[in-house]
Amino acid sequence: ASTMTLGDKQQKEEAVGGSATAAGSSQKAKEVVSYWGVQPPKVTKDDGSEWKWNCFRPWETYQADLSIDLHKHHAPTTFLDKFAYWTVKSLRFPTDVFFQRRYGCRAMMLETVAAVPGMVGGMLLHCKSLRRFEHSGGWIKALLEEAENERMHLMTFMEVSKPKWYERALVFTVQGIFFNAYFLAYLASPKLAHRITGYLEEEAIHSYTEFLKELEKGTIENVKAPAIAIDYWRLPADATLRDVVMVVRADEAHHRDVNHFASVTDVHYQGLELKDSPAPVGYH
Amino acid sequence: ASTMTLGDKQQKEEAVGGSATAAGSSQKAKEVVSYWGVQPPKVTKDDGSEWKWNCFRPWETYQADLSIDLHKHHAPTTFLDKFAYWTVKSLRFPTDVFFQRRYGCRAMMLETVAAVPGMVGGMLLHCKSLRRFEHSGGWIKALLEEAENERMHLMTFMEVSKPKWYERALVFTVQGIFFNAYFLAYLASPKLAHRITGYLEEEAIHSYTEFLKELEKGTIENVKAPAIAIDYWRLPADATLRDVVMVVRADEAHHRDVNHFASVTDVHYQGLELKDSPAPVGYH
Ligand SMILES: [Fe+2]
Ligand SMILES: [Fe+2]
Ligand SMILES: [Fe+2]
Ligand SMILES: [Fe+2]
Repeated sequence: ASTMTLGDKQQKEEAVGGSATAAGSSQKAKEVVSYWGVQPPKVTKDDGSEWKWNCFRPWETYQADLSIDLHKHHAPTTFLDKFAYWTVKSLRFPTDVFFQRRYGCRAMMLETVAAVPGMVGGMLLHCKSLRRFEHSGGWIKALLEEAENERMHLMTFMEVSKPKWYERALVFTVQGIFFNAYFLAYLASPKLAHRITGYLEEEAIHSYTEFLKELEKGTIENVKAPAIAIDYWRLPADATLRDVVMVVRADEAHHRDVNHFASVTDVHYQGLELKDSPAPVGYH
Repeated sequence: ASTMTLGDKQQKEEAVGGSATAAGSSQKAKEVVSYWGVQPPKVTKDDGSEWKWNCFRPWETYQADLSIDLHKHHAPTTFLDKFAYWTVKSLRFPTDVFFQRRYGCRAMMLETVAAVPGMVGGMLLHCKSLRRFEHSGGWIKALLEEAENERMHLMTFMEVSKPKWYERALVFTVQGIFFNAYFLAYLASPKLAHRITGYLEEEAIHSYTEFLKELEKGTIENVKAPAIAIDYWRLPADATLRDVVMVVRADEAHHRDVNHFASVTDVHYQGLELKDSPAPVGYH
């Protein structure tokens, strides 16, 4: 395991002042970093070199469980299930038309959306836990972990495919709409919201499988895996984009399970609430 | 360290069906838990007994750093600082009047509010990171960790002081107002929002110091520490409420540092953005 050494906390009271001065000088940056005595911990890799990622730490990395069943599907039976299923299916058509076979771009764009449900759910459950003076059963953490994991997918695909200005604009709009829609859906029925996410994850698995086919055919070049992916999923140094898509797809299968599980265990079903079933925290 | 043994994942496809049946039977509960193959990991304590908390895990517990300076104060200099300072000071007056010397109740009630800023900030930075295809510098995690830590404060004080129905109603209202107000403040100026939180934490330290004085005088009974607090802060088995208030106060001092630090490093200051300074992740 990697080691973390907390530098001596400099209790540097000296204020950096209120008015802005010349930016960017390294002396100034150093002062800002030690301001209020908060010294960033020095994190190193196994080989002693400096850990280069601030957005995740060595102890958050993992090896994906590639043995997970990719074909599991929740057959919609209730009206709610069918509504969730057809909502997702109807979103897929315009997506297919827009991206065609550009799976790298598609992955990058869709991950900006995929990271929303976990954050919305986690935030709402957090507020509910506070309001009701109730334990969460670990669901807040499980959903926030999912959101973070999806954000890491985005940070990875960003390295492979760079967004153009109109794609940025599109993401801006889609996030605005999707965040609010999912927020309202979650308020109305967490059961429905998790079911929708479950089906979205099933679609994600499908789209990564298509991505893999293109990589194998050679229509998409199997480039070297980005450094961030190698560190995050503990991949070998010579890993390729194909390996990355494999582990990301396994992640999506895990999210599918968590969300279909959450949908089943939620309120209105057998009088259970999410908090009554321990959440799959750290489920990869 | 405690061990976690992942039980064999039962890939139990068998659907639990759509229509609700008799609730509460343990057989049924077991099926729900293993639905979608998500088997909760079996977590044990050092002594081999079962870990009883779903809302936090053994590897998230810590020993608070009681040596932190409790008197550090950011002297407001800029207009923004002064605005934040007087906003917090003006909120303190009605709070003092409402709670008088009932510090147990006060702690419980205020922790429902204290857990909001970290969640709002973390959520907004998460969405920003997605929208802009940018790394977060660890700030999303640092702020969500703060929110979780505050929620644990609440879970602890709940065990000491039970909320009455009108207190629940008050929390409901205050959360509705504060969440939205802080959300808007954070959108307008993260710098202001973090400064406000920094000052709120300074007030929290003060109020826990008063709590300690009452405990020492004997006007509030120094009861046994709740079990959740003993596990969360790794306190000795015979710890008392006084020990709990000590570690909670140290937590508040850490939050104060993180937020004043965030306020200084944020946008508009020397052209820096939060993401450019590594966040104090895991700072206790
Ligand atoms: Fe994803
Ligand atoms: Fe996903
Ligand atoms: Fe607190
Ligand atoms: Fe706090």
